[in-house]
Formats: sequence, C-alpha cells, structure tokens
Amino acid sequence: MSQFENVAVVKKANVYFEGKVTSRVVLFPDGTKKTLGIMLPGEYEFGTDCHEVMEIQGGDLLVLLPGEEEWLHIQGEGEFQVPANTRFKLQVKQVTDYCCSYMTE
Amino acid sequence: MSQFENVAVVKKANVYFEGKVTSRVVLFPDGTKKTLGIMLPGEYEFGTDCHEVMEIQGGDLLVLLPGEEEWLHIQGEGEFQVPANTRFKLQVKQVTDYCCSYMTE
Repeated sequence: MSQFENVAVVKKANVYFEGKVTSRVVLFPDGTKKTLGIMLPGEYEFGTDCHEVMEIQGGDLLVLLPGEEEWLHIQGEGEFQVPANTRFKLQVKQVTDYCCSYMTE
Repeated sequence: MSQFENVAVVKKANVYFEGKVTSRVVLFPDGTKKTLGIMLPGEYEFGTDCHEVMEIQGGDLLVLLPGEEEWLHIQGEGEFQVPANTRFKLQVKQVTDYCCSYMTE
C-alpha cells in the first residue's frame, strides 16, 4: 500500500533528539494510530507504551530488542516488533524512513 | 487547524539533502496537495514548479525570496510565499516544522 486513504494527519511534527528523529501522527477511521517518521544517523533509545510494529520503508540500522543480546541489522526494507512497556535501542547508520503501528490489543 | 481530516497520506517520505530536509505528501479530496516537512539546520536552495505557500509551524530560519536582497527572518511561527518557477534560499538555524501548500492557480 503506497498511501493511506481516508485518514487524519496531525499537522505538527513530533520532534525527538534535536530533530534527528521526527514523525507525523496518522489517525485511522477505526481509531488506530500510526506514525510516519524519519531517523537520521545516530544512536537512540526509546520506550514503548503499547505493542509497536516498526516497518522500515528504507534505511540502514541496527536494532537491539528488549531481552536480546544480538543486534538485528536491517538494510533497505524490514520489520521488527517491540512489546508494550519495554525499551529498545537503535543505531541508525543511514537515513531511515519508518512507519510505526501502535497495536491496541 | 491542528489536523487534516479525510485526507490521503503517501507512506514513503521525500528525502532531500541527506535527510536534513524531509517531507510527507498529504492529498486532499479537492485534488490539492500539501507537504508536511522538517528541515534541520543547514543552508538550502529550492526551486518551485507552482506557487507555494510555506507555513512555518515552528523553527528559526532566514529566507531569501526570489528578487529580494534582504533575508526574511522567521522565529517561531510565520509564513512566506514563493511564485511558480523561481528559486529561493533558506538558512535554517533551528529545527523547523513546516506545511507547504501547492497552489493550483
């Protein structure tokens, strides 16, 4: 799917890490939410409130998921999931374009 | 208006200047188009295909509009317009969140 139809988009961006990570909130008719975001090269740590599905649309990054000791390497497209109420680390090597889905059960 | 309703959003980002300028395309039911974008500090030059209205939602930047000799300074919120088929320059001092409207006539 190359575009989301019949959605609402929050005008203002979410800005993290001095703008090296930014995203826009997309709201769906069924009440679910996704963010479309960009991460520039750097090292980041994030926490989750709910289960997140991270679709990498393009980029180059290493991901350390909670409880894991080995970094997952994603080049180009890929996906990883993060349980609710956990933390995960990222080493972004090249500009990364992502779509994050927030799962509500 | 804090969010756009009943729109389509292109999933993949537009990426310029190694990711220092990125945007997402928002398509409206009336056929018009806007982009929601982020610019990180740096110096940029852009060309326009159509008349553009740039709404700055937050940031700090200097703008040199076509035919002008003085830079316009926008801090916080602001707006400027650029005629079709011209070029303009930006000096972005702090992370800048913008909404660009592409005018069709």
